[in-house]
Amino acid sequence: MAPLQPLGRERCLELLASVPVGRVVFTLRALPAIRPVNHLVDGDTVVIRSSLTTSLASAAIADGAVVVAYEADEIDPDRRSGWTVVVTGAARLILDEERLARYEHAIEPWADEPMACVIGIDCDLVTGYQLASAG
Amino acid sequence: MAPLQPLGRERCLELLASVPVGRVVFTLRALPAIRPVNHLVDGDTVVIRSSLTTSLASAAIADGAVVVAYEADEIDPDRRSGWTVVVTGAARLILDEERLARYEHAIEPWADEPMACVIGIDCDLVTGYQLASAG
Repeated sequence: MAPLQPLGRERCLELLASVPVGRVVFTLRALPAIRPVNHLVDGDTVVIRSSLTTSLASAAIADGAVVVAYEADEIDPDRRSGWTVVVTGAARLILDEERLARYEHAIEPWADEPMACVIGIDCDLVTGYQLASAG
Repeated sequence: MAPLQPLGRERCLELLASVPVGRVVFTLRALPAIRPVNHLVDGDTVVIRSSLTTSLASAAIADGAVVVAYEADEIDPDRRSGWTVVVTGAARLILDEERLARYEHAIEPWADEPMACVIGIDCDLVTGYQLASAG
């Protein structure tokens, strides 16, 4: 058995920035939905880009913002060690041309997604845990 | 650029059963919530066990069932290949003693979690995609 250790905000954002892939969690037709995407961390914003999040983007367009969770982890099942970080905050379509140009260059969607849009998630609430290696 | 290929239900459940860890997605105080847990697939039920899902368990106790999503993936950022599977369905506390004994033996929580309960997620809706290796 290994203890769960809470992580501080700065460490959480460092860990999140250290991996290229996470999962965006939102509500779609009143059901929980989750999609893996690649991301970057820019200050207090997680930036994602994927047409898999089209329904998320539609919600953001309609409402101005929608609250989502974004999770990344690195877990070693054999050693039972690793970490998980969850950011919860408003997701907004990024429309500013200078930011768009920068992010579109930095985050290339993996799949063939001509309609991919760029979404910024505010790091309003940041939580994370370290799962310490047993023994 | 690599294409996203939809996967059939049987293949999705095979892939889900091939990994020990996934992420349960639910609503907590009207916000999207996500927790990594270990799992097993028993027929058309995904079985998870973790006290990190205590709030999920409380909802299941109060309401009889709560709809959740469960996601697992294996993604290789360098090769831009991999897969993701999402199961959506009702989550219920498992209280049957014979099933409890079997699952508690098969799924050991990783963290030191004396209050861990066992939850079954119905595979009502199963979707998955293969991200084919580029080139």
